[in-house]
Amino acid sequence: MYTSKLLRNLIEEFTKLPGIGTKTAQRLAFYLLKIPKEEALPLAKAIESLKERVRFCSVCFNATEDETCSICKDSKRDRKILCVVEKISDLVALEKSGEFKGHYHILQGALSPLDGIGPEQLRVKELLNRLRNSEVDEVIIATAPNAEGEATALYLAKLIKPLVRKVTRIARGLPVGSELEYADEVTLSRALEGRREM
Amino acid sequence: MYTSKLLRNLIEEFTKLPGIGTKTAQRLAFYLLKIPKEEALPLAKAIESLKERVRFCSVCFNATEDETCSICKDSKRDRKILCVVEKISDLVALEKSGEFKGHYHILQGALSPLDGIGPEQLRVKELLNRLRNSEVDEVIIATAPNAEGEATALYLAKLIKPLVRKVTRIARGLPVGSELEYADEVTLSRALEGRREM
Repeated sequence: MYTSKLLRNLIEEFTKLPGIGTKTAQRLAFYLLKIPKEEALPLAKAIESLKERVRFCSVCFNATEDETCSICKDSKRDRKILCVVEKISDLVALEKSGEFKGHYHILQGALSPLDGIGPEQLRVKELLNRLRNSEVDEVIIATAPNAEGEATALYLAKLIKPLVRKVTRIARGLPVGSELEYADEVTLSRALEGRREM
Repeated sequence: MYTSKLLRNLIEEFTKLPGIGTKTAQRLAFYLLKIPKEEALPLAKAIESLKERVRFCSVCFNATEDETCSICKDSKRDRKILCVVEKISDLVALEKSGEFKGHYHILQGALSPLDGIGPEQLRVKELLNRLRNSEVDEVIIATAPNAEGEATALYLAKLIKPLVRKVTRIARGLPVGSELEYADEVTLSRALEGRREM
């Protein structure tokens, strides 16, 4: 079909990425074929640099070019409060909110026995070790409000409780800007359950 | 937001691609961060090879690593019939159908005055030169059945008619497997107009 082996090869490499089907891969490859070299090569370079130089922070498992990430190094952040998230993109979302000024711990996933992901596949051991020798007062468990995230939260809470004064879970309720009539039953139940005095 | 400059840079490079928004770019970058180096680097390499070694066929403007593409070089293909398409992915789609055994000419776009694309931006001059010194008997104009493609087809037909015996346009009608009730009016009109005796 493709008269260029290298073009076919690039399309194949693109289809290996999550959520990229043949049509999208083809569109991306043809786009890169069309644009000037100087505009296409930085993408290749960026992938190489990522794999050569970015690693996981030895403390919280965030992405960093150094031994520890800039959040862990930041002396202005509150060391008494630790937020546990599933993945780096969750940390990014929380940082965008600007609400949280403590430290993080990235689990690198959530418990999912069907997918073969148990506590050993996650950074649970590292989290417990970290809490054992720390001044952390409160751990906020911010895993996702879905089946895997909730199971992970319950599992972690049990392990963490003996180690810190307070273990909390992020609130589940109605998203801001939404309407009650379109909310699902479970979310509504949680919103009622989590009600606060005004 | 991102504690890794290189991670942020890769996300930015991904968002430059067509149809890739911030969320998708982030997902792709995190995926590449997670997988082993040996699985991620081939993508970077493939982009580099594409830009270093793939060029456009000097005859038909298909993608190739050589001076002319394998279709142009193929002596078993019919030199008397030439199919004009907008882009390489159109050629790929036609080749998949297995129906066409002639040669191609890729315009590298369609007329679109609003986007500043006139005949000079397309490979029209090259098409006419090619037809002037050739044994081509029939030119099939297979530009897209949309406003730009139809305008391009009309424009080309006028220029090509003095040069070859026959200029044809691919049929517009109901897609195979579709239903009449869901077809738009213009497609139905074209399907009636293009009816053939059984």
